[in-house]
Amino acid sequence: MSGRLTVVGMGPGHVSQLTPEASAALTQAQALFGYTRYLERVPEYPGQRRYGSDNREEHQRAERALACAADGTDVVVVSGGDPGVFAMEAVVCEAVERGPPEWRALDVGVVPGVSAMLAVAARVGAPLGHDFCAISLSDNLKPWGLIERRLEAAATVGFVIALYNPVSCARPWQLERAFRILRNCLPEVTPVIFGRAIGRPDERVTVAALSAAAAADADMATCVIIGSPQTRIIERPGKERLVYTPRSSPQ
Amino acid sequence: MSGRLTVVGMGPGHVSQLTPEASAALTQAQALFGYTRYLERVPEYPGQRRYGSDNREEHQRAERALACAADGTDVVVVSGGDPGVFAMEAVVCEAVERGPPEWRALDVGVVPGVSAMLAVAARVGAPLGHDFCAISLSDNLKPWGLIERRLEAAATVGFVIALYNPVSCARPWQLERAFRILRNCLPEVTPVIFGRAIGRPDERVTVAALSAAAAADADMATCVIIGSPQTRIIERPGKERLVYTPRSSPQ
Repeated sequence: MSGRLTVVGMGPGHVSQLTPEASAALTQAQALFGYTRYLERVPEYPGQRRYGSDNREEHQRAERALACAADGTDVVVVSGGDPGVFAMEAVVCEAVERGPPEWRALDVGVVPGVSAMLAVAARVGAPLGHDFCAISLSDNLKPWGLIERRLEAAATVGFVIALYNPVSCARPWQLERAFRILRNCLPEVTPVIFGRAIGRPDERVTVAALSAAAAADADMATCVIIGSPQTRIIERPGKERLVYTPRSSPQ
Repeated sequence: MSGRLTVVGMGPGHVSQLTPEASAALTQAQALFGYTRYLERVPEYPGQRRYGSDNREEHQRAERALACAADGTDVVVVSGGDPGVFAMEAVVCEAVERGPPEWRALDVGVVPGVSAMLAVAARVGAPLGHDFCAISLSDNLKPWGLIERRLEAAATVGFVIALYNPVSCARPWQLERAFRILRNCLPEVTPVIFGRAIGRPDERVTVAALSAAAAADADMATCVIIGSPQTRIIERPGKERLVYTPRSSPQ
């Protein structure tokens, strides 16, 4: 019997943002693989095996999960947010391509989820309301020069920019450097949104002007959204400001 | 008493991709506003008022919903996919900014959802697995020249590109023109994914090479994803191909 591997998006973290499709896949799985802190969010079911690992062991996790599925097991790989956005599904595909031919015969599925930028945007209004891009600031697997070119190009043509993986213990300087590049291309007042751990007890969302945005306000769990020159702030007496990017653009 | 307006993301269309948070908001609302075809997907609750409108009447819908909330009603505006991505939340923010001061005093919330590009990507693997952008091809509210510059910039720096609103009855030529521009910047074999109505009975997902991609394969309900030069296809005997963009990029 050939097994099955499904990569499941857990959304931002709160159970109310986990889709029924994702819940069903988690319940039915015979074995769960994932970053230990994501697995801790999944209720335990009798007879289900669980294999937690460190967040830097993504490739090994994907290989072990595929090997387990090839043994005839119904496997779920747990992913934060949406599995297709800077998350586990690309890692699984890389492992399938490099792995033994029998892994190509497996049923491989993806259950999409609410990606971090959508959850952060929802907290403040609609900063992603018009054309935007998503960039990982990690230069572990791509050259920093390419990231700089993408930041400059995106700001120059007016994309709103969502930054994933803005900072980590091993990568402390990239976000400040990104802000410096963007300050050369964008107005000082451009809104910058820092959103972390949406829907969890340690949620924090702040908005700053690009001129005052401080990289120290971000950590590994933060998604940073930088507006375009069109992005606007609506002041509201007694209420949180709304940040949004209108649908219309001048030439 | 001051009312409340929540813009709720319905996801791609199947109830299994509607988050519990969205379901709860739909159930609790006293009045629902939305595009008639989206409202038809929402089960009716006793005593709940429903105001369907045409998909071109977005601004009027937002104003009516805000006026209703200002009367002390708990209002939900129904949005396809995620409300913050080319959808109703930016329209509501525009209406708040232009409207009477009392609209700024309302509680305005957003329930995020699975946006179309995530649902389409999940069907084929992880085409959005690395840096990407999302562009609306509608030139109703922005000049076509700006869209061309964004397409060229995105392809040149290696973003995967998700196209929303690729075509409509009133805009038949934009997608073919976009393909022509991208053929000048990207390899002929670049994968192009057409995904429509994910999770609904009329779902259709196809993959073509950029050189052979035909605009006629898209309609209003389609999200088109164009790979980067790094995007790969894994052939699988007896199974659907996987399309993914690796996490690593060369210089």
